[in-house]
Amino acid sequence: MRILILGGDGYLGWPTAMHFAARGHAVTAVDNYLRRTLALQTRSEPLIAAPDLEQRAEIFREISGFGLDVRIGDCADYPFLESVMRETQPEVVVHYAEQPSAPYSMRGYSEAALTLRNNLATTLNVVWAIREAAPSCHLIKLGTMGEYGTPDIEIEEGWIEIEHKGRRDRFLYPRQAGSLYHTTKIMDTDLIWFYVRMWNLQATDLMQGPVYGLSTPEADRDERLLPNFHYDDLFGTIVNRFLVQAVAGIPLTVYGQGGQTRGYLNLLDTLQCVELAASHPPGAGQLRILNQFTECFTVNDLAAWVQRAGHSLDLRVEIQHLKNPRKEAEKHFYQPAHSGLLELGLRPHPLTEEILCSMLKRILPFKNRIDREQIYPRVRW
Amino acid sequence: MRILILGGDGYLGWPTAMHFAARGHAVTAVDNYLRRTLALQTRSEPLIAAPDLEQRAEIFREISGFGLDVRIGDCADYPFLESVMRETQPEVVVHYAEQPSAPYSMRGYSEAALTLRNNLATTLNVVWAIREAAPSCHLIKLGTMGEYGTPDIEIEEGWIEIEHKGRRDRFLYPRQAGSLYHTTKIMDTDLIWFYVRMWNLQATDLMQGPVYGLSTPEADRDERLLPNFHYDDLFGTIVNRFLVQAVAGIPLTVYGQGGQTRGYLNLLDTLQCVELAASHPPGAGQLRILNQFTECFTVNDLAAWVQRAGHSLDLRVEIQHLKNPRKEAEKHFYQPAHSGLLELGLRPHPLTEEILCSMLKRILPFKNRIDREQIYPRVRW
Repeated sequence: MRILILGGDGYLGWPTAMHFAARGHAVTAVDNYLRRTLALQTRSEPLIAAPDLEQRAEIFREISGFGLDVRIGDCADYPFLESVMRETQPEVVVHYAEQPSAPYSMRGYSEAALTLRNNLATTLNVVWAIREAAPSCHLIKLGTMGEYGTPDIEIEEGWIEIEHKGRRDRFLYPRQAGSLYHTTKIMDTDLIWFYVRMWNLQATDLMQGPVYGLSTPEADRDERLLPNFHYDDLFGTIVNRFLVQAVAGIPLTVYGQGGQTRGYLNLLDTLQCVELAASHPPGAGQLRILNQFTECFTVNDLAAWVQRAGHSLDLRVEIQHLKNPRKEAEKHFYQPAHSGLLELGLRPHPLTEEILCSMLKRILPFKNRIDREQIYPRVRW
Repeated sequence: MRILILGGDGYLGWPTAMHFAARGHAVTAVDNYLRRTLALQTRSEPLIAAPDLEQRAEIFREISGFGLDVRIGDCADYPFLESVMRETQPEVVVHYAEQPSAPYSMRGYSEAALTLRNNLATTLNVVWAIREAAPSCHLIKLGTMGEYGTPDIEIEEGWIEIEHKGRRDRFLYPRQAGSLYHTTKIMDTDLIWFYVRMWNLQATDLMQGPVYGLSTPEADRDERLLPNFHYDDLFGTIVNRFLVQAVAGIPLTVYGQGGQTRGYLNLLDTLQCVELAASHPPGAGQLRILNQFTECFTVNDLAAWVQRAGHSLDLRVEIQHLKNPRKEAEKHFYQPAHSGLLELGLRPHPLTEEILCSMLKRILPFKNRIDREQIYPRVRW
C-alpha cells in the first residue's frame, strides 16, 4: 500500500513509519518538528536524543534495507499538504499531526490558541487534501479515549443508540473531555464526521488510551531508531514517566487519590491496531470508530506495579500522592467497550512485570540524563 | 448593565445594540466588518445600504438620545479583545462575532478555512478574555438549532439524560449539523462547555432558528437604522429571501421537496430572548442552553404563506422547486423542545399574513435595487 504518515517524527508516528516500511509498503512520513520545538521551548526534552526524521530514515534504510520518503513541512499549510497528497497518491493516510499534550494545552493562552489552531487546521487540511487529491484514500485518525471523559454509563465504541420518549436514533457517543487538547480531538471528530457524511470519504477514528513502551522490532535494531521517549509532565505518558521516576529515585507522582482509571496499551499494540485498521478499510461514507486499548488500570495499580518491578531490580521506589494539578474525577465508574480491534485480529501484549523490568533496564543506562525539573507537574488547571 | 456586543454590526448584533442602549444599558458594540467584506467579495450586498457601525451609532444617538460605544477591531485578535474586555468590564457579553453563512462555509477551501479559523479563534478569545479580564461576566453565545440537525428523536434543550444498560447520566444532546458553519457552532459548544467546567464561567447558549424581519422599535425610527437586510443565497435568511423574490417577481426558490422543517422566530423575539437571557444569568459553572424559536414550519408552508401575502398585495408570486443544492433530509421528523425561554417570560410574535404584508410593503420601494444574480443558489454540496 501507499501510506502517508502525518506527524511521522512523533512517539507513535516514527515507529508506525518503520513498521509499515519494514512490511514493504511505500511510506511517506511528514513532520514539521512542532513537538520537538515545543519540547525544547518548555524544557521537556526526551530521555534519549533522537536524530532528526531525515537522519532516522537514512539510518533505518542502512540497517534494514527499507527506504521511506520524508517530507519536512507543516500540515497546517494547505498547499504543502495538498501537493504531498497529490504526489504520493496514498491509499491510507495516518493522521498523527497534532499538538499531543494535554498539560501543554492548559499552560496559558498562547498554548491553548496554538493547540486549537494547529489541530483543527491540520485536520481540516487533511480532509480537504484527501478530497481534492486522493478522494478514495482511507483516513486513519488518531483520536483519544480522553474524548469520552468518565461518564457514568458504559462507554461504547464511538456510537450510541439512544431510545428517547418512544423513538430511537443512532448518534456519536457523547463526548466531554478533561483538557483543551482532548477537546480539540472532539472537534476533530465533529469535523471528520461532517465531511465523511457530505463527501462520502472513508475514515477510521482510533480512540486510543495512554501508550507505553519504547521497544519495537525495528527500533530494537539500533538505539538511534528508538521512539522519542518523553518522561516529563507535558509530553511523557504516565507509565513511561513512572519508570523514569523509579530509575531516578524520584517518588512516583500519583495525582490526587489515584483512582483515575484509563485504558492502556503497549506501543506494539498501537502498531498492530493501525495496521489492522489500514488493512480493513471501512468503505466510502463510513466513519468507523474503534476504542484502542487493551486493559484498564487505575493510577494506583500502575504505581504499585512499577514499584514491584523496581524492587525486583533493587531500585528503591516510593509513591507520592500529589495534590491533583488537574480537574478530574479521582474515583469513577469506567467501563469502555473495546471489541472492534479484537474482532479485526488484534493480539494484545498485556502489561507484565517482565515488560516493566525490561523497560527499566533500558532506561537505567540513561539515568544521568534524567532532568528532575521536568518531572513534577508544572501546569495546573 | 454593562453589555458588550461582539459582532455588533450584524443583522442581529446591530438591533441588539440599539435595543439594550434604548433601555438605558451601557452598550459597547465591537465589529471588524467581516460580514460586510465577505458580502462585498461575493456579490451579496444587502437590499438597503447601511451606514457603517460608527455612523449608525451616531445617527441613533442623534435620534434617540441614547449613545453607544463602538470599537472597530477583530475579536480573533486576542490583545484587542482582552483590552476591550478590561476597559469596558462587561456584566454581559453577547457573542455574535462569527462568519454566519452556511453556504459561504461550503463554497471552497478558503471559505471553509476562514470560517473554522475565525469562529473558533473568536470563541476561544472570548472565553479567555472573560477569564482574564471579567471572570464573573455572563457569556451569551448565539448557537443555532442547526447544530442538532434532524434526528429521529425529540430534540431537547441542549442536554439529554441517557439511560444505557441500566445506568444513567446527563450529556450534551448529540449534535450533527448540515454545513461546516453549523459544525463550527457545535465546536463552539464543545469549547465553551469545556471552559465552563474548568473555570466556573457562566454561559448561556441560545440555539437559534432562522430569524426573519427588519422592524424593531428603534430601527423603525429612521431607515438608516434598519438591520442589514440580506436576501441573497449566502447571507439571506429564507423568509427574507422569499419576500424579496415575491417583490421582484422571481419564483420562490424551494430547495428540493420543501419538507424541511425548522423553528423560526421574528427578529423582535430574538431581542426579547437575548434580553431575557441577560437578565437571568445562569450562575457560575453553568452552561444553560435554550432553544430559541417560536414556531415550526416547512419550507413549503412558508412559500405558500408568502405567496398568499403577495397575492393580497397584487404581486404575482410563483413557487419553483429547485434541485436541492444542499445535502439534507427533505422530509423528516422534527420535534424540538422550546419551553425554557417561554418560562423566562418570552411573549412570542407569531408569523402572520399581516407581518408578511408589512414586510413586503417595506421592501417594495427597493424593488429596483434587487440584484437577481444573488438569489439563486451559487454553492452546492
